[in-house]
Amino acid sequence: MSQDRFPVAVEAAATAPRIRPSIYPEPFASMMAGRVKHPLGDLFGLGNFGVNLVRLAPGAVSALRHAHARQDEFIYVLEGTPSLVTDAGETPLAPGMCAGFKAGTGDGHHLVNRGDTEAVYLEVGDRTPGDTATYPDDDIAAVQDKDGTWRFLHKDGTAY
Amino acid sequence: MSQDRFPVAVEAAATAPRIRPSIYPEPFASMMAGRVKHPLGDLFGLGNFGVNLVRLAPGAVSALRHAHARQDEFIYVLEGTPSLVTDAGETPLAPGMCAGFKAGTGDGHHLVNRGDTEAVYLEVGDRTPGDTATYPDDDIAAVQDKDGTWRFLHKDGTAY
Repeated sequence: MSQDRFPVAVEAAATAPRIRPSIYPEPFASMMAGRVKHPLGDLFGLGNFGVNLVRLAPGAVSALRHAHARQDEFIYVLEGTPSLVTDAGETPLAPGMCAGFKAGTGDGHHLVNRGDTEAVYLEVGDRTPGDTATYPDDDIAAVQDKDGTWRFLHKDGTAY
Repeated sequence: MSQDRFPVAVEAAATAPRIRPSIYPEPFASMMAGRVKHPLGDLFGLGNFGVNLVRLAPGAVSALRHAHARQDEFIYVLEGTPSLVTDAGETPLAPGMCAGFKAGTGDGHHLVNRGDTEAVYLEVGDRTPGDTATYPDDDIAAVQDKDGTWRFLHKDGTAY
């Protein structure tokens, strides 16, 4: 029975954070200091999409600015005032605001917390196989293996 | 360019609600009075999953209690104190709480707002094709056609 394996409901902020802070190769992984993710969807055994509660300390970034080829993403701001960076420039966000990142547009996005207080938001992403990610501002490219694992390359195709 | 077609970010509560309040056949559609959905994912052109901001007036329900065969669902409570009904009984929720409904468990769920104030939550559901939904408490069953349209039947297989 599902009740034996998964909780009925949880308080999101009280859940355990992910232990591994970033899967990026260095020097990028260290740039994710100040970002903490609580994997909420996994707690309930969800397989088709992931949902994380993400906390960004002042100065922290959500990710390298990136665009997915096949997977959609969505964010909803709960606390704080993170800035959303896309090809359109920088858009200030506030609690109750949301944004979606349709796969395949090539428009890279990430969040930067330029505020003095922690920013907290929900992020949703699906698990469509065969995804790739491009990074307009950094020398990195990502391809997803059949088992869902991400591999990172330099833009010239050499491995990290 | 994506910026020409979709907004960069929006205030979720200020977006337009869905015009058609329910796709259930009667008498079930009328039972969804007091439920208002704001389709957020659609605003950004997302195709792999949907995200709605849902508002439940006091006394309103989120849906008939149901379970999906293939599609996962997730909810995050923003305001109010809706109750989550599953096979485990009734679980009181509050802002900051979340729940996930893994496809295929057969454990039906819905939310009932037994509070005196509006309940507001986010709901996420993917769009895995070939889904069906079962309803433990009502004489209804749902199958999804190849184009994603839901068809509703009585439990004996006859059409509504």
